[in-house]
Amino acid sequence: MPYTIGLDYGTGSVRAILVNTTTGEEVATSTFDYPHGVGGVVISKKDPNLARQHPADYEAGAIATVKAVLKAGAKRKVKPEQVIAIGVDTTGSTPIPVNTAGVPLALTKKFKNDPNAYAWLWKDHTSHAEAEEITALATKMHPEYMAKIGGRYSSEWYWAKILHCARVAPDVFNAAESWVEFTDYVPALLCGTTRPDLVKRGICAAGHKAFFHESWGGYPDVAFLKALDPRLEKVRKSLPDKVYTAADPAGMLSAEWAKKLGLKAGIPVAVGAFDVHLGAVGSGIAPGTLVKIMGTSTCDLVISPTAKPIADVPGICGIVPGSVIPDYYGMEAGQSAVGDIFNWFVNVIVPGGPKEADHKKLSEAAAELKPGESGLLVLDWHNGNRTILVDQRLTGMIIGLTLHSSPVEIYRALIEATAFGARVIMERYEEYSGKMQKIVNGGGIAAKNPVAMQIYADAMGREVATTKSQQTCALGSAIAGAVAAGSSAGGYDNFASAIAKMASPAHRTFKPNPKHVETYDRLYGLYRRLHDAFGTANHAEALGDVMKQLLTIRDAAKK
Amino acid sequence: MPYTIGLDYGTGSVRAILVNTTTGEEVATSTFDYPHGVGGVVISKKDPNLARQHPADYEAGAIATVKAVLKAGAKRKVKPEQVIAIGVDTTGSTPIPVNTAGVPLALTKKFKNDPNAYAWLWKDHTSHAEAEEITALATKMHPEYMAKIGGRYSSEWYWAKILHCARVAPDVFNAAESWVEFTDYVPALLCGTTRPDLVKRGICAAGHKAFFHESWGGYPDVAFLKALDPRLEKVRKSLPDKVYTAADPAGMLSAEWAKKLGLKAGIPVAVGAFDVHLGAVGSGIAPGTLVKIMGTSTCDLVISPTAKPIADVPGICGIVPGSVIPDYYGMEAGQSAVGDIFNWFVNVIVPGGPKEADHKKLSEAAAELKPGESGLLVLDWHNGNRTILVDQRLTGMIIGLTLHSSPVEIYRALIEATAFGARVIMERYEEYSGKMQKIVNGGGIAAKNPVAMQIYADAMGREVATTKSQQTCALGSAIAGAVAAGSSAGGYDNFASAIAKMASPAHRTFKPNPKHVETYDRLYGLYRRLHDAFGTANHAEALGDVMKQLLTIRDAAKK
Repeated sequence: MPYTIGLDYGTGSVRAILVNTTTGEEVATSTFDYPHGVGGVVISKKDPNLARQHPADYEAGAIATVKAVLKAGAKRKVKPEQVIAIGVDTTGSTPIPVNTAGVPLALTKKFKNDPNAYAWLWKDHTSHAEAEEITALATKMHPEYMAKIGGRYSSEWYWAKILHCARVAPDVFNAAESWVEFTDYVPALLCGTTRPDLVKRGICAAGHKAFFHESWGGYPDVAFLKALDPRLEKVRKSLPDKVYTAADPAGMLSAEWAKKLGLKAGIPVAVGAFDVHLGAVGSGIAPGTLVKIMGTSTCDLVISPTAKPIADVPGICGIVPGSVIPDYYGMEAGQSAVGDIFNWFVNVIVPGGPKEADHKKLSEAAAELKPGESGLLVLDWHNGNRTILVDQRLTGMIIGLTLHSSPVEIYRALIEATAFGARVIMERYEEYSGKMQKIVNGGGIAAKNPVAMQIYADAMGREVATTKSQQTCALGSAIAGAVAAGSSAGGYDNFASAIAKMASPAHRTFKPNPKHVETYDRLYGLYRRLHDAFGTANHAEALGDVMKQLLTIRDAAKK
Repeated sequence: MPYTIGLDYGTGSVRAILVNTTTGEEVATSTFDYPHGVGGVVISKKDPNLARQHPADYEAGAIATVKAVLKAGAKRKVKPEQVIAIGVDTTGSTPIPVNTAGVPLALTKKFKNDPNAYAWLWKDHTSHAEAEEITALATKMHPEYMAKIGGRYSSEWYWAKILHCARVAPDVFNAAESWVEFTDYVPALLCGTTRPDLVKRGICAAGHKAFFHESWGGYPDVAFLKALDPRLEKVRKSLPDKVYTAADPAGMLSAEWAKKLGLKAGIPVAVGAFDVHLGAVGSGIAPGTLVKIMGTSTCDLVISPTAKPIADVPGICGIVPGSVIPDYYGMEAGQSAVGDIFNWFVNVIVPGGPKEADHKKLSEAAAELKPGESGLLVLDWHNGNRTILVDQRLTGMIIGLTLHSSPVEIYRALIEATAFGARVIMERYEEYSGKMQKIVNGGGIAAKNPVAMQIYADAMGREVATTKSQQTCALGSAIAGAVAAGSSAGGYDNFASAIAKMASPAHRTFKPNPKHVETYDRLYGLYRRLHDAFGTANHAEALGDVMKQLLTIRDAAKK
């Protein structure tokens, strides 16, 4: 029996999973918390926007977790030589400055204590001014770049971070031969190929976040980068013309790393991809399926065959061929805050509330409420709106408050709002790629909160399935490993066959309640009106009926 | 030295105050909690709208509190025979069904256990359907009636309550010879003149809430009342042609009640008025002064000379000649919830929050914030909007929420919103009666919350004074007593002289901080836009800049 290992590098920890490639069974998992920083993140007292990671943690994490799953696997009689491949996913865009030898500057003596030489974590927002600068310049010079990313470059992304480094830490910038994405770095490390000219870079990180697109010849134009800052030319020159999908091997496991991990040398390591993209694979993505990975924020993925050219979809932040699986566009969308909004309410607004202080109790109490009966409606923009408005300068709103509005009612309204936000995204996808046949919710909230899932089914008016696996990202990496290995080695020749055998089955299916759908359709109509009124420019509309309609819906629900 | 006693009947208790008419000194006060019901209010498990009071509590309360202040006065060498008059204020509209002898039906054997025969407390909302019916019919038959009450009849008022009683409790309705306002009943009781044809009714309760206006010959047209319900004709016939101001005596203290209270028989008892109107008197109302009595809700009063005819002011709910003092229109406005909103937040939304669970702590922490720095803006309509929108079917709203929004920030935004609501009212007054020279805030919040008062000064852009007396309503009643007694008896011949000597001096004066005013002017501009967008019909306006402007103001404030 062949097995693969998936490595899933998150924000605070890395997980390994050992999977039977024939049955998809998850034989063992192991987690390793990054030792550096606070919860794995190196922060700054002076600047709340700073978030870095130490690349040494990535090495230590791979060794600890792979050894642990092999040890657990041994008890189930899985031998190390049965492991035929490794797949890797990570957070991103998380670029790492490396020297000409491919060593992260953080691991060199000179820079070991300089956070600017560490990995620049996706949620590092120090480069917000540079992001705006890139947006402005690209809008002028290369509107086609902007069309592929929904119209706004983010401080979470590759070029903004590098440009910021050039400005605030020129010594680091000058010492860096190239910047390698975390997700490209780990496979290269395992294969002994971190030297910039040897690293196989993945389309998932390159496409949209680093402005890579075949239609304009790969990474962006040198003239454009030089117009931002002449020093960027050097970085551009370190980048390859060709990038790869997660179906390709980044290389073969080096002897050195085989020894460190306790595996056989020479097995393929798949090209890396972002966690959510491989999470979609682990959740069984297919054309017509919308996969939502729901955590502190939510990422949405849909795939669409590249054989059929697709229009740019306004507000969908990335449409990248091969970013999820080959021969399909990966179409990425997301909600900037979902679980974070629920956490804000529980941790910040109702601290110590005796009966209502945790998600489980609040959710159970919220389940007793009927749709509409609170009279409340929320705009879920507490952290801006990623899709479809692509605007961080939006904020949350609650309307319909009375002297009787309770924390439970507000909590339910917050869930409903995120479900309405999800519906806006779904409807935008459907405008361009037809009706979704299936909605699969993965991630922590999907696993833990059936009340929220039923609200999603009712508010979206669709059947919603949750995944049995609680590690769909790591599972997706294990699937990528199996594809990189190929069928001759006991893996698969393509993602479709691998997904069919290995992706997570559904755990539960939530069917919409037609009566609830009816009420939510009315509330969603009001949500959309507020969404457009507050989220778009020059949209004049009379809203004097909104509060009254909410009360009418409330009164009907209470009857 | 002459003294007067003011009796102030509130929702849960009655207070008496013994005042030196020459110096205004408050010699003694005493409070009596009504024994019936919950906190003095008879309620119903079946109907949350029901709120009644037992008239026996009114008698017991007068006896207990007057005796108590006389006892305390004796220690200061004040003799009962030095008390030259009594003034009375009560809640309202709180009509009481009485029989032909003037006995409240609640005090008769047949009806002693029937809450429909009790006093129908102002906040009884069982008659909301009848209020709408009256609004609809009056709008058609007598638009002039509606012009005087701001366009909407309330379930808190006289005719709605009586009409509802006729429908749900015809036995009570049929047994009632008339319905006497609480504020007219108590003086009549003390004078032994509760028989319906002997009761002197006050303009304060009759004007606007019972549709009394000289211009249409007093109480409303019989044909109009008959069109509502033919049975109302009987009630109309029990009402007098003439009504009185609080400067007039309702009669003289009867021998029976002189004995019960321990006072001299034959002293004048002033015609009754509503608590807030006499609160304005106790706060030193004068032309150009806006008096705000701030408690769970806020009532606003301005007076304007009747010599100068005044236009109907849209949204101002009552413009009644003599309702506060003779020869002046009393112009009444209000906010449906103020302290109630703060209480909702503290009691319902942040229960048990360890550091943030009370008004004092929240206010002190809120004082540390700069105007605008939270980025939050609230519409303070958690209990609808009394002035200037006159619409109960409006609700509260919070905009500008982020994952960092804290309870303290929300608390401050709630205070700011009520201050903006107050500014809307002030500006509406000023449109019609010129600039207010002085703003005096009385009531519990004014006395207890200097942080809120400073925010009011800054958000309204005006100097705000608070009253030294914490019993401005009772003090106003004592002043009314002094006027009813007249100068020959040691009182005063008019309210202006009485107010000059007896009304409460200012306790503190809050001066607006010009820098804060500047920020609040910008926030108020946004408040007004949301106010008009959500509070008025057919008001189409683009609001896509609102969230962004709040963030810009926030970012500037944080610098």
